[in-house]
Amino acid sequence: LDASDWRAAHGELISRWSEIADLASATALLHWDQETYMPRGGIEGRAAVLSSLAGVIHSKLTAPELADLLATLGDSRAAAEMDDDERTTVALAQRDVTRATRLEPALVRELAAATSLAQAAWAKARDESSFEAFAPHLARVFELKRRAADQIGFEGSPLDAFLDDYEPGTTVAQLETLFDGLVAELAPLVARYGDPARRHDVSPLRRSLPESAQREFAVAVATAFGFDFDRGRLDRSAHPFCQGVHDGDVRITFRAAGEDLRPALYGVIHEAGHGLYEQGLPAAFRRTPIGDAASLGIHESQSRLWENMVGRSESFWRCFLPRLQALAPGRFDDVDVRAAHRAANEVRPSLIRVEADELTYNLHVALRFRIERDLFAGRLEVRDLPAAWNDAMEHFLGIRPTDDREGCLQDIHWSMGAFGYFPTYTLGNLYAAQLLAAARREIGDLDAAFAAGEFRPLLDWLRRNVHAIGRRHKPTELITAATGAPPSARPFLDYLREKHERLAAD
Amino acid sequence: LDASDWRAAHGELISRWSEIADLASATALLHWDQETYMPRGGIEGRAAVLSSLAGVIHSKLTAPELADLLATLGDSRAAAEMDDDERTTVALAQRDVTRATRLEPALVRELAAATSLAQAAWAKARDESSFEAFAPHLARVFELKRRAADQIGFEGSPLDAFLDDYEPGTTVAQLETLFDGLVAELAPLVARYGDPARRHDVSPLRRSLPESAQREFAVAVATAFGFDFDRGRLDRSAHPFCQGVHDGDVRITFRAAGEDLRPALYGVIHEAGHGLYEQGLPAAFRRTPIGDAASLGIHESQSRLWENMVGRSESFWRCFLPRLQALAPGRFDDVDVRAAHRAANEVRPSLIRVEADELTYNLHVALRFRIERDLFAGRLEVRDLPAAWNDAMEHFLGIRPTDDREGCLQDIHWSMGAFGYFPTYTLGNLYAAQLLAAARREIGDLDAAFAAGEFRPLLDWLRRNVHAIGRRHKPTELITAATGAPPSARPFLDYLREKHERLAAD
Repeated sequence: LDASDWRAAHGELISRWSEIADLASATALLHWDQETYMPRGGIEGRAAVLSSLAGVIHSKLTAPELADLLATLGDSRAAAEMDDDERTTVALAQRDVTRATRLEPALVRELAAATSLAQAAWAKARDESSFEAFAPHLARVFELKRRAADQIGFEGSPLDAFLDDYEPGTTVAQLETLFDGLVAELAPLVARYGDPARRHDVSPLRRSLPESAQREFAVAVATAFGFDFDRGRLDRSAHPFCQGVHDGDVRITFRAAGEDLRPALYGVIHEAGHGLYEQGLPAAFRRTPIGDAASLGIHESQSRLWENMVGRSESFWRCFLPRLQALAPGRFDDVDVRAAHRAANEVRPSLIRVEADELTYNLHVALRFRIERDLFAGRLEVRDLPAAWNDAMEHFLGIRPTDDREGCLQDIHWSMGAFGYFPTYTLGNLYAAQLLAAARREIGDLDAAFAAGEFRPLLDWLRRNVHAIGRRHKPTELITAATGAPPSARPFLDYLREKHERLAAD
Repeated sequence: LDASDWRAAHGELISRWSEIADLASATALLHWDQETYMPRGGIEGRAAVLSSLAGVIHSKLTAPELADLLATLGDSRAAAEMDDDERTTVALAQRDVTRATRLEPALVRELAAATSLAQAAWAKARDESSFEAFAPHLARVFELKRRAADQIGFEGSPLDAFLDDYEPGTTVAQLETLFDGLVAELAPLVARYGDPARRHDVSPLRRSLPESAQREFAVAVATAFGFDFDRGRLDRSAHPFCQGVHDGDVRITFRAAGEDLRPALYGVIHEAGHGLYEQGLPAAFRRTPIGDAASLGIHESQSRLWENMVGRSESFWRCFLPRLQALAPGRFDDVDVRAAHRAANEVRPSLIRVEADELTYNLHVALRFRIERDLFAGRLEVRDLPAAWNDAMEHFLGIRPTDDREGCLQDIHWSMGAFGYFPTYTLGNLYAAQLLAAARREIGDLDAAFAAGEFRPLLDWLRRNVHAIGRRHKPTELITAATGAPPSARPFLDYLREKHERLAAD
């Protein structure tokens, strides 16, 4: 094997990967469309299309020619001549190919079709608050995912098979320890700052505002943060999400909630945080294994950082309250920065995860993690989910849903077969605090910058330390390289304590 | 070869075809999205995605395994045991495979990418009325299509290679005869009924009406005609079109034109006519070769029939004028059915094809056909297109565009590489008149039905005689079977003379 051989093979690998990435882009657009504009009658056909695309992608990933290329590129003499990015490209491709090869083609296609149908069934069941209508779909998806876990392989929990895809290197056993510790530390904080006697007044942000004005304000904020609407767009959907089609086309969605500005505003900031990451992935590695996000946890760190640590800061409101007042003349004239800041940080155990405050949010995640763990351990049946959910809500948050819409039907994830996805939300919260603390150490007074409307220094830091890395590092390595320390819950808990102590003293 | 062999092979053919149809559905959605919601920055990535999808579809169509199946199914003993639909399925698949096999894979991918980029360049160039900005894209697309024609093969004009795809059995030589005769018959009609001295007053329909009201009225009309919005939707785009994703998801677009109701109304009816056809394709043959439209000309017959022969009839306005008056209180109170009918049928040589009246419309098509013919004959260069266009407009219609936006940049088709597409518009007009005359003979007094808001009898007749046929018949056979006579321009010319004579005498 001489150098020219592996160079040609590497070129061929990139060429094949580009085609696979394009098919994934098409799939992404079909998913976005299903949640935004697809007519009701399109669902059966859409499920078939997604199934066929999943089958084609899978067959491209498992093609013998691709395996041959990777064998050539895995040769130690070839590896010795490659630069770091070339070696990483080969390793990531090999990882994805190995994983895909373990899955039977028929199961891949069945899963794509079943989850597409289940998503539509979920949306309908949620509207009608009827878990029963959704249960058969969920049981089918769960059964297929259980088979997928067996085919992929795992050591501890079947959930590990998916966790390793979403958050490489993470296991259920690790997460059990993490959540046990986190819940133990969060519980007293929730008790202290969620005490009704000291609850912040939310009326400064809960005022009648037309959806168009809510949208206009949220778009102004996302634009100020750096989201590029020439390479993205904002639409409505039942469940807010961000879907990167590719780095030139990143789509976010929101839903407005009548009287309250907060769900639309913080929903848009959250998804724009995801979108900033997608728009900042390394353009030179577009359509290659390096060009993707590092993990779901890293992804979530970007959304939560902008949503909570920037968007719910006092300096954010220093910058944006005047704009809000100008946008809705008369509606917010009596609100000052302190009042808006406090309203944005109400601590109150509540039923809906995406609207939960920063202190209780991870308890919602802990609940979902335990339910998933029990499902995959065979300790819980799909049909018993609503009761298990409601019991866990009482256990973790002291409140009980009165219907499934506000209970186990609130999230789209399980209909998508995305078991193991929720824990990455908590990892994202932890990473976010650790990243922001590191950025503050390097950049200096970020609060003064935010108050002056300068979000570029923070974005640039994230671009360099997170976005531009793409998938070169595993999450743990990425956080360590960016912050100088391995991932830890400490910065997050420090951040929460400091913020809420100051708010309470204010 | 025994019966079970070909049955298994037929099943495998259908299974492979379903996958190809699904990939075509994904492509359709990507095209729709590019013209409606894609952000500006998405174009480069979108071109790549469309190119990869075109490559995958082409490789599926040209797979040796598919050729082997067709060889098995082409055996005379197998054919003897099949029913008609099975034989037709095999023949259509063989036709598509043969055609695809003649095209080099690289050219297929290049064309998909080049046309995607050219469409975006066309939209920008049209906005700026700058042919120069579009010319390099068009030259590139033309060059690729010229190569495609060589690879596909043709006897007379290179355009024949594409005509045979769009309108099986049609050639440039036939169309030259057709257009010569048609132009000769239309010219005196245009001179007579387009005489400014007897021009109808259009003010009854040219009144300030908000876009939302225009949309509401057009949707009411499309719904009454039978377009199913549960299996379709309506959006805005620069150039109105209908894109069937599959029979459960048929999308039409429109653009509103400020003061004048006619472009939005008749644009929506036109696209809804296409949409009714897509929604009516034989569901039992979904994702098989039979499940597609018979030809572009047959497709256009459906849009033109509803747009002009139904939508511009007196009985249409008997039915819908009261609805329009109710929708926009006070705006149309002084309009009566006769005035609306006349306003909808103004004859006036004009610059924009999609807004042309029924008498001048085919002269717009004749112009485009001659330009395409000359381009492919090497008698015309892309850079000389604007001058050739403007000269031809003077020749055919006696008017001259003052800029390219109203001249050779008005249509999206050439940017899509759709040379040979325009003539099918004229064929559609002829088919439409012949079909409607046959429906009138069979059903009876359609005008009374229309006036009473009953459009179902006509739709049912079209469903039976056109939509449900799918691609079983070639256009000439389909028209002959449906009307009892081979295609002819006579019913169309009779329809025009009778209608305009009556309007003139009225």
